[in-house]
Amino acid sequence: MHTVTDINEGLVNRQVSAVVEICTNGQGFFEITAEIKKWIHGKHFIDGLLTVFCGHTSASLTIQENADPDVQQDLLEALNRLAPRRDSYRHHYEGPDDMPAHIRTVLTGSSLSVPVSCGKLTLGTWQGVYLIEHRDATHRRNIILQFIGC
Amino acid sequence: MHTVTDINEGLVNRQVSAVVEICTNGQGFFEITAEIKKWIHGKHFIDGLLTVFCGHTSASLTIQENADPDVQQDLLEALNRLAPRRDSYRHHYEGPDDMPAHIRTVLTGSSLSVPVSCGKLTLGTWQGVYLIEHRDATHRRNIILQFIGC
Amino acid sequence: MHTVTDINEGLVNRQVSAVVEICTNGQGFFEITAEIKKWIHGKHFIDGLLTVFCGHTSASLTIQENADPDVQQDLLEALNRLAPRRDSYRHHYEGPDDMPAHIRTVLTGSSLSVPVSCGKLTLGTWQGVYLIEHRDATHRRNIILQFIGC
Repeated sequence: MHTVTDINEGLVNRQVSAVVEICTNGQGFFEITAEIKKWIHGKHFIDGLLTVFCGHTSASLTIQENADPDVQQDLLEALNRLAPRRDSYRHHYEGPDDMPAHIRTVLTGSSLSVPVSCGKLTLGTWQGVYLIEHRDATHRRNIILQFIGC
Repeated sequence: MHTVTDINEGLVNRQVSAVVEICTNGQGFFEITAEIKKWIHGKHFIDGLLTVFCGHTSASLTIQENADPDVQQDLLEALNRLAPRRDSYRHHYEGPDDMPAHIRTVLTGSSLSVPVSCGKLTLGTWQGVYLIEHRDATHRRNIILQFIGC
Repeated sequence: MHTVTDINEGLVNRQVSAVVEICTNGQGFFEITAEIKKWIHGKHFIDGLLTVFCGHTSASLTIQENADPDVQQDLLEALNRLAPRRDSYRHHYEGPDDMPAHIRTVLTGSSLSVPVSCGKLTLGTWQGVYLIEHRDATHRRNIILQFIGC
């Protein structure tokens, strides 16, 4: 049996949403933790749930280490091994990076949720929120932020 | 620094849930976007959070491209390469598609969240919500929809 | 067209959060379903949304079968094949299990959502909620539970 300790309890009287616009320049990790923290602070959110949603099928979201940039490079190579460029895909309208981008999006996900407590994201010490761009060309990506709480 | 633009702000005074029943006939993608949109419209939801939950360990959820059906075929083959049928699994009670189905479910996920804004899902232009069936035989699958907002 | 049936409708007047502390002793699945159910029961939650969040970059969350323990063993081996230990990672500060742990976390995810209905998690018959520990050494892991509803 693991220990369960209460953190806090409150009302639910607000929901607010915003869009983060990100210009990407090729495959890679684009951190949005600072923008999220600034938004939470500016809106005076106290307790609640933050949802992050990526409205694209060839870019995705993850929470990963924000300390050593080598981690992101290794993660990109791992995704490249798991969903490689190959000639045998049926779908290749937009080039050899098209179908691998869809597979990588399915594996990493389009939405994530982070509780907010006492005005702060409950991210761990080394955690950052990232958009992962899976396409080669430059893209304009929209990430929706939504908060429900007080 | 990426641009953050507010979308809307509102109250939170309703939560509603429903179950979508899907009869599957073998491995594949089963789209439920139309059912979700109709439910949101019928309930007159304005702003809030839609959660979709799959109550099974051998079927899962994803958001992917709804334009070219070849994408789904390529995704199924990618999942087949990542979690292949093999003789060496310990768990094979229900046949050679049993354990690969559990692995594919872990990789793709059982829940997802989509913000609702001004009465509409904030899905991108090419995004659809799908149940992925990982088993060969016909199954009856239950997907829970839950809305919190106004 | 799939069948959609309403489950229930209610108010949203409470949010409560707690932390589950788990001491892990090497790679494996650590179930927290009993702790979550006990917490929901103790707080008298009726309807709403439970969010589970893992505040670490080398441990993650999943919902999987809780009947046959062989499933967990097969899943660990599958994750080992998908994100193997290898000499070629750039990031290896904390040993050969360091970078594979990050990759496995990205593939399986840091947050999940489960609707609560009539005081019960809407988990399917065979579903359990698990922390997956990806590191070899013992670790103290914090999982945040958050409920929004009534």
